[in-house]
Amino acid sequence: MPCVLRLPIPMAAKSHRSGLTSRARLPDRRGMIETISTNRSHGGTQGVYSHSSSSTGTAMTFSLFLPDHEPGEKLPLLWFLSGLTCTHANVTEKGEFREACARHRIAFVAPDTSPRGEDVPDDAEGAYDFGLGAGFYVDATEARFAKHYRMRSYIEQELPEFLASEFPLDMEQQAITGHSMGGHGALTIGLRNPGRFRSVSAFSPIVSPLNCPWGHKALAGYLGDDRTNWADYDACALITGGARLPDLLVDQGGADAFLEEQLKTHLLEEACAAAGQNATIRMQPGYDHSYYFISTFMADHIGWHAERLK
Amino acid sequence: MPCVLRLPIPMAAKSHRSGLTSRARLPDRRGMIETISTNRSHGGTQGVYSHSSSSTGTAMTFSLFLPDHEPGEKLPLLWFLSGLTCTHANVTEKGEFREACARHRIAFVAPDTSPRGEDVPDDAEGAYDFGLGAGFYVDATEARFAKHYRMRSYIEQELPEFLASEFPLDMEQQAITGHSMGGHGALTIGLRNPGRFRSVSAFSPIVSPLNCPWGHKALAGYLGDDRTNWADYDACALITGGARLPDLLVDQGGADAFLEEQLKTHLLEEACAAAGQNATIRMQPGYDHSYYFISTFMADHIGWHAERLK
Repeated sequence: MPCVLRLPIPMAAKSHRSGLTSRARLPDRRGMIETISTNRSHGGTQGVYSHSSSSTGTAMTFSLFLPDHEPGEKLPLLWFLSGLTCTHANVTEKGEFREACARHRIAFVAPDTSPRGEDVPDDAEGAYDFGLGAGFYVDATEARFAKHYRMRSYIEQELPEFLASEFPLDMEQQAITGHSMGGHGALTIGLRNPGRFRSVSAFSPIVSPLNCPWGHKALAGYLGDDRTNWADYDACALITGGARLPDLLVDQGGADAFLEEQLKTHLLEEACAAAGQNATIRMQPGYDHSYYFISTFMADHIGWHAERLK
Repeated sequence: MPCVLRLPIPMAAKSHRSGLTSRARLPDRRGMIETISTNRSHGGTQGVYSHSSSSTGTAMTFSLFLPDHEPGEKLPLLWFLSGLTCTHANVTEKGEFREACARHRIAFVAPDTSPRGEDVPDDAEGAYDFGLGAGFYVDATEARFAKHYRMRSYIEQELPEFLASEFPLDMEQQAITGHSMGGHGALTIGLRNPGRFRSVSAFSPIVSPLNCPWGHKALAGYLGDDRTNWADYDACALITGGARLPDLLVDQGGADAFLEEQLKTHLLEEACAAAGQNATIRMQPGYDHSYYFISTFMADHIGWHAERLK
């Protein structure tokens, strides 16, 4: 059927709209947000925006899908935190979230995974699992990284405030999900901020950076070798330490090449069971670590969040 | 809900399966097909394969999504022909077709848009709209291009025969769609092959290469300047000349930057009206030429084809 239009462009996005297919960076008149692109999709507007972040000291890019809505309506917001090597673009192009978000009238924001820019230090050998594209959603304390690698502050404080000021969002109605390193981000940010999210889910999350090579490298690199400083960034340790989520849904591919060495889903199952944390943790046979897996279960996650956002 | 598995891997794909996440090119034991990758997705298998084409004299890559199915079952096949600059990968990653294909149990094949390789001539200036990525689904007759640019033969004869021999497909149950240059391909191949397709649809098709700059450049380049040789590759001319489709569905974005100069949907509306060709041609306000548009209406097209394939 033809799409029923409610509003051609969401009200709050109009002021920084640069044209439906524009790729030009046009400075917004407030000088705070640049619209990189907007495209109509699935009865809403898929935007990509850039703004100057005080947390990271860099420009930060994010994508935001806003379903059509009534004038004055504020939409619930689902966060998606991406995994190693990703930018906002991976899930925006491959995540297959827009149909379900439009149906449930939920906005969907996908931030970048690290600060970027000429001044931003990278992994010493340019490896994919540290530095650029691998911020691990921490506030770094090691001298080399502490200036820019402040993704915890960016996601926990700055970006929510910025989004609330710029777009028609109901910040009392937030949910969060993510993939792999971003699943780790969703879990730990949810656990550290009780009351902020109505629901938390994850796709193939790193459940315990304290217990896997990706985590050891990242947390040592950003926080130093004293592991007592790492526990704030470990979902299993946070749950064992008493933190709780309102509800939790996890999907994990059974054929995921990273399952045994890095993801270790069983540690989360054990931590939840021991702590009495409500959790639905599903092993999906045959599925791998890719967006072919994420996109398969995306609509299911969005529906699950929608039930908890109403 | 967790995905209900019918078969872990489609039967006919097993023999050339190289692992769920493999990117290695492993020669098949028959020496005819290479599996580039397979990924489980939406209750089926998304494969990417390469084979040696006698039509083009090159290796040709295509993607094929096979929903899970019963042993011995043969699936209907929907073709998707891509547009300028694309490979099989664009729709495979961004097309959002797998959920609907799995639900309707329809296989989905996405061929490349031109021959490729060191010996394959390109546009003299490397432009995007001729040569590599721009085969226009013609059999070239101009000397420079006639050896390799034989996408008509490849799509009309060779690839269907190859797919039928390698995969569990019911070739009596075919449908075709495509985008832009691939919409032109879907329309003209459907019109020239009555009885082969149960249904034909298109997203923002080039409806009349005889009447737009993209068409003039491509058809002159591949076929020479005598326009009497072009009519076989012009959907409007074919309809006016008496060719018919069983049924036709077209979606066109109202904010498509190429609409006025290149796509000219009104010419198709006029040709169908004058000839009495059944057609549903829909203008979708606000949508552009991108996969954000295609993915929005993909499930609707698949459902429309599914009704005609049963």
